[in-house]
Amino acid sequence: MQIAILSFFHYFTKMFKNRESILEVEEGNLLSPKFNDEGLIPVITTDFKSGEVLMHGYMNEEALKKTIETKEAYYWSRSRKILWHKGKTSGFVQKVIELRVDDDQDAIWMSVDIGDGASCHVGYRSCFYRSIPLGAVKDTTQIKIKFKEKEKKFDPKKIYKGQPNPTKL
Amino acid sequence: MQIAILSFFHYFTKMFKNRESILEVEEGNLLSPKFNDEGLIPVITTDFKSGEVLMHGYMNEEALKKTIETKEAYYWSRSRKILWHKGKTSGFVQKVIELRVDDDQDAIWMSVDIGDGASCHVGYRSCFYRSIPLGAVKDTTQIKIKFKEKEKKFDPKKIYKGQPNPTKL
Repeated sequence: MQIAILSFFHYFTKMFKNRESILEVEEGNLLSPKFNDEGLIPVITTDFKSGEVLMHGYMNEEALKKTIETKEAYYWSRSRKILWHKGKTSGFVQKVIELRVDDDQDAIWMSVDIGDGASCHVGYRSCFYRSIPLGAVKDTTQIKIKFKEKEKKFDPKKIYKGQPNPTKL
Repeated sequence: MQIAILSFFHYFTKMFKNRESILEVEEGNLLSPKFNDEGLIPVITTDFKSGEVLMHGYMNEEALKKTIETKEAYYWSRSRKILWHKGKTSGFVQKVIELRVDDDQDAIWMSVDIGDGASCHVGYRSCFYRSIPLGAVKDTTQIKIKFKEKEKKFDPKKIYKGQPNPTKL
């Protein structure tokens, strides 16, 4: 019952500024992010040194607020349906160097420091460890992707033992 | 009627490989992207030289196939509901240098060459031209964001004259 009341209350509470005009959203200087129908905003996470894209995730209002305030990356885990302090299990916390918002304020770019760590639950440094070849395609069901990272940074079986894999078919 | 039949046909046609196992999706070497309930996959677009994030967009199956085959960026425009050859109006075509897919194959990272051009309909080089300050927040409805790009690369009023603004409140 307590959970139901909290959820009900949360549904009608908007944490950030209302979006009142397109001019204000695009050219203004107040943060008024747009969360989608599920209450989420997509987040691009890049390595502040190399510029490589580490992951693509989502934040809800609370995750965005906690990220701003703590300077560590929080996401909304869509598979586990919880607020997710990245690195709490693996130790690979993401320290936020810079946070940016896009023109229509419906996406976040987060530049982070992960040292020599990793950001991918499969064990690679970046989640984007495979490349799609470009050019003419004979059969779209047989496009071979190539591994760009040669070695895993950690063994996910050791780090996440007993936990379900977040990947969904 | 023709449109209805085509849409119906398209609904039951899957262009890319079926997702048969989590191991195959994560560690395999065949492209089997996951499109969401709207038939879209999120795309992170970065500048291949500077590594800066230029934009966050979406592709449907057709946009992904055309991007792979033509080596120019195609997106699905959610506001206009059309296949969108980026740069067709503005002239700022994105030449694809590399295309990557993430661990669970539900996001795309596209590294592009836009020369000295721009990728943002507001006129800036990157859509992420404003930065969110980090640290304690007194009032979440009054978070001031700072412009990181000083000058627009083009005047959107001249380039997009008469066209509706894609930003939605």
